[in-house]
Amino acid sequence: MKSFKIPEATIIRLSIYSRYLHRLMQQGITTISSSDIAEKTGATSAQVRKDLAYFGEFGTRGVGYDVESLYDSIAEILGVDKEWKLIIIGAGKLGLALSMYEGFRERGFKNVGIFDVDPIKIGKKAQGIKILHLDQLEEVCEAESPDIAIVAVPGEHAQDIVNRVVESGVRSILNFAPRVLTTPIHVQIRNVDFATNLELLTYNMASEDRR
Amino acid sequence: MKSFKIPEATIIRLSIYSRYLHRLMQQGITTISSSDIAEKTGATSAQVRKDLAYFGEFGTRGVGYDVESLYDSIAEILGVDKEWKLIIIGAGKLGLALSMYEGFRERGFKNVGIFDVDPIKIGKKAQGIKILHLDQLEEVCEAESPDIAIVAVPGEHAQDIVNRVVESGVRSILNFAPRVLTTPIHVQIRNVDFATNLELLTYNMASEDRR
Repeated sequence: MKSFKIPEATIIRLSIYSRYLHRLMQQGITTISSSDIAEKTGATSAQVRKDLAYFGEFGTRGVGYDVESLYDSIAEILGVDKEWKLIIIGAGKLGLALSMYEGFRERGFKNVGIFDVDPIKIGKKAQGIKILHLDQLEEVCEAESPDIAIVAVPGEHAQDIVNRVVESGVRSILNFAPRVLTTPIHVQIRNVDFATNLELLTYNMASEDRR
Repeated sequence: MKSFKIPEATIIRLSIYSRYLHRLMQQGITTISSSDIAEKTGATSAQVRKDLAYFGEFGTRGVGYDVESLYDSIAEILGVDKEWKLIIIGAGKLGLALSMYEGFRERGFKNVGIFDVDPIKIGKKAQGIKILHLDQLEEVCEAESPDIAIVAVPGEHAQDIVNRVVESGVRSILNFAPRVLTTPIHVQIRNVDFATNLELLTYNMASEDRR
C-alpha cells in the first residue's frame, strides 16, 4: 500500500464503485470493464483507472476486472472487510432512520447500542436493538469498545456527548448535530448536518440573485 | 455586500450561529456577546467576529450584538429570509424522515411535493403532503417552480432524477444517493450520502491500523 496522501474524492468514488460491484455480485456478474463501472457510477473511465492505480494493479487489459476480487480489494482499502462496531446517540426520527439503514449491516457495521434520555423510548427496540438510557453509555462502551459514534442529538448536547464517547475510546464520529464540535487530534469527526448543507445551497442561490 | 469569495467554513458557521440566535429569540434574550455565541456553537470569539466582518459591522463594542437584528442579517446573508420551495424525490425511510424534519419549516423551506413510484405509498400523506407518483414530477415543477430538489432514491435512479429536475428548472440539489452525479454548471449539487461518509471514517481507521 503506497503511503502518499490519497485524495478524498478518490475514497468517495471507491466507496461508490464498491457498492456497484456489490450489486453486480448479487446479480452473478463476474467481470466488468472500467467504462462500465464509470458509466454506472457517474465517474469517467480515466477516473476509475486512476483511482484504482493508487492502490495497485487490478484489471487485465482487454478483459477488465474480476468483480469479486475487485470488490474484495476495495473493501480492504476502505476498511469495510472488518466488522466495525458503532453506537447511535439520539433515538429521534433521524437516529431511528439511521438505525434502520440497511447499508450498515450490508457493509459490516454492527450496531451495538442506541441511546436516548426520553423515558418513553427507553426499553423499546429499534431493529432488534434495545434503546438504552444515556446513563449506560460508558458501561456499553466499556463492554463493546465501539469504533464509531453517530451523534444525532440536539445541538446543545452534542459537544458533551462527543466528550463522553471520546473519553470512552471511540475513534471516529459521524455528527448530524448542527454544531461545530471539538475532538482531540486522534479522533476524526465528519459533519453531515443537512440543514447546514441546505443553507450552503440557499446562500449560493441568494448570492446569485443579488448579482 | 463584499463580492470576494467567502470561505465555505464561514457559511457553515453562520448557519450554526443563526440557529443558536433563533433559540435565543424564542427564549426572549435580546443581546449576546461574540464570546457567548462562540461558546455555545463550538467556534472561537475571533472566528465569530471574523465571520461576521465579511458582511459588515453588526455589534456594538462593550454591548455585544442585538440578537434579533443579527439573526435577521445572517438570515438575509444565508438567503433563508426568503421562502424556498423544495421537493423530495423518494419516500423511503430517509425521504420520509427528511419530510418530517422540523428545521425545514422553521427556516422557511416549503415542501411542495414528495414523489415515489411505490403504489403502496402513493396517495398517503407525509406531514400533510400527499405522496405523488414520480410521473407527476414535471407537472408539479411546472406549477410550483421548486428551487431545491432533495434526491433520496436508490443510486441507479439518481442521475435520471437529477436530469429530470434540472430539465424542470430546479437550481439546487441535495443528494443522498451513493452516486457521483453530473449537473450543468448553473445547477449546484451537494452530496450528503452517509454511507460514503462512514467509509471515509473506516478508510482512515484502517489506514492508521496498517501503519
